[in-house]
Amino acid sequence: MEIIKEQSEVRQYNGKLDFKNIPELKQVEADLIKVVSDSCGTIRNMCTHILEAGGKRIRPLLVIYSGLVYGENSPELLQTAVASELIHMASLIHDDIVDNSALRRNRPSINSLWGNNFAVLGGDYLFAKAFGILASRRLTSGMEYMVEAIQSMCVGEIIQAEDRFNCECTLEKYYEKIACKTAILLKCCCQAGAAAQNAAAEEIDLIGEYGLNLGLAFQITDDILDLCGSSELTGKPKREDLRQGIISMPIIYLLGNKANGQWVKSVIEQRQFDDDTISKICSAITKTGIMEKCYDRVRAHIDKAQKSLDKLPDSYPKDILYRLADMVYVRMN
Amino acid sequence: MEIIKEQSEVRQYNGKLDFKNIPELKQVEADLIKVVSDSCGTIRNMCTHILEAGGKRIRPLLVIYSGLVYGENSPELLQTAVASELIHMASLIHDDIVDNSALRRNRPSINSLWGNNFAVLGGDYLFAKAFGILASRRLTSGMEYMVEAIQSMCVGEIIQAEDRFNCECTLEKYYEKIACKTAILLKCCCQAGAAAQNAAAEEIDLIGEYGLNLGLAFQITDDILDLCGSSELTGKPKREDLRQGIISMPIIYLLGNKANGQWVKSVIEQRQFDDDTISKICSAITKTGIMEKCYDRVRAHIDKAQKSLDKLPDSYPKDILYRLADMVYVRMN
Repeated sequence: MEIIKEQSEVRQYNGKLDFKNIPELKQVEADLIKVVSDSCGTIRNMCTHILEAGGKRIRPLLVIYSGLVYGENSPELLQTAVASELIHMASLIHDDIVDNSALRRNRPSINSLWGNNFAVLGGDYLFAKAFGILASRRLTSGMEYMVEAIQSMCVGEIIQAEDRFNCECTLEKYYEKIACKTAILLKCCCQAGAAAQNAAAEEIDLIGEYGLNLGLAFQITDDILDLCGSSELTGKPKREDLRQGIISMPIIYLLGNKANGQWVKSVIEQRQFDDDTISKICSAITKTGIMEKCYDRVRAHIDKAQKSLDKLPDSYPKDILYRLADMVYVRMN
Repeated sequence: MEIIKEQSEVRQYNGKLDFKNIPELKQVEADLIKVVSDSCGTIRNMCTHILEAGGKRIRPLLVIYSGLVYGENSPELLQTAVASELIHMASLIHDDIVDNSALRRNRPSINSLWGNNFAVLGGDYLFAKAFGILASRRLTSGMEYMVEAIQSMCVGEIIQAEDRFNCECTLEKYYEKIACKTAILLKCCCQAGAAAQNAAAEEIDLIGEYGLNLGLAFQITDDILDLCGSSELTGKPKREDLRQGIISMPIIYLLGNKANGQWVKSVIEQRQFDDDTISKICSAITKTGIMEKCYDRVRAHIDKAQKSLDKLPDSYPKDILYRLADMVYVRMN
């Protein structure tokens, strides 16, 4: 399969774009550790747990490289990046309460270790910390983007919860959900980075278009991997989304498939999620060409993202953003 | 009893300080309704529910009158007041998850109606909205005070949860808890109001000292009312705090009382909270003079709050703040 074929290229690519060794991200990581060590007691333990669980730090990366397109590195840019990751961490903690998830990045989730009540407070603390950092640097534009992102994430999570097990879910509704849940935060990270460097309004729009499409591509890939990826790589129990009734793009296509639609609908409505049935669903997704269809959509969003970048002046940070988009297409976790 | 004797005076006082007819608070209320109507779906339903539950709007009142001490009314002051109430509403929604409360102001709580998962998102949405309002007006000082307040509330809720049923709880720890949980937000409201009017640092400190002591007095009174107040007036099930193992000032004094200490300790440790036992505890609090002792503490904080005001120039808003402090002493709900 094409996806698998390209895996070796990804590894190479990963070698070139070695996130851990990007100096600005090292600074972000050091600042995140400082933020956590400034707290104490149970709050500190929860924050340490979520920080040490790691993650790709895509959001601070987007803030920084979107900003670097428009100027030299600055404390404002770095602090916007730190705030973006704190907001992401807070939203992960709260999402795990909403979804009742026991695992996050191969480790027990905050709610499973400390209970929902403490997890609510841990998330609130990190949201507040993020706004404190932005306020102390007078980064009100960055703040407005982060507010937009948080409100969208809340709306997205609610759409998702209300649409569980709904076999009438359309592709349009799916897009609304993943935009709110994931892509708008990525868009806002890019915009906040550019705004921290005083980019012009139309430049902020362009980089936002890049972030939005990157986010859509990212989430569609995430949904494909949940069905067809390895749980060792994703850090989440495989096919958990489907078991929870979350209707993602491959499932929407399968529901519309003549040979499989009725059968899949009855499986979902009757919640017959034994391993055997789920394997059959995944196999049908592969055999009917639905997976390629989904990856075509991913590619289209990546193309759109990269096209937004075309209008910006050539630079090293623009090149990184361009390659980052390619990496989403071939990511395995 | 002195408290009861003063009740009729309160009513009169309430007549003079008729919150509902304060023009600035009417404007705040109109803006809160607008904020809620800007949202949609389940978020809107949750926000409408918490808004319609009412409340005394003490926090916006503190923002506004603290600000009016230092200058004419302004859109910045009003918006800071709106943000303070949104933050309070968000924290109420999240606290009800933390405490697993079924009632809030005599109505079912958000978590009991929509579940914990939606309640988490409803609170997040309101927090974000509050910061959005402050960011759009570039009110970064107000934002820093609100961040401090949210972080304190998180810490306070965690101290409270970790100290449930702990009969070794000291008065010092109790003060730390109520400062974090309640008083620091009131302090920050006063400071944010003064800062919105560009008051000087030492003026902001003074008005903060007022807010902090008002908040301590307010929470101690709240804890007394939970044990000895009427649930019809407070809107919360009476003595619920004690049943949940929350050790408040009257209980700390009772635990230190020779005649009752050991007995109360065993009741709490064995969680024997039948109506009869709780009635005996309340009766002991009254008979041993503990209630007066607690109200003496309330009075001391009110005196301290009013003393902070003495250093400010005489004005109508200062007079209102002064009288507001007196009202806490005699409040019945």
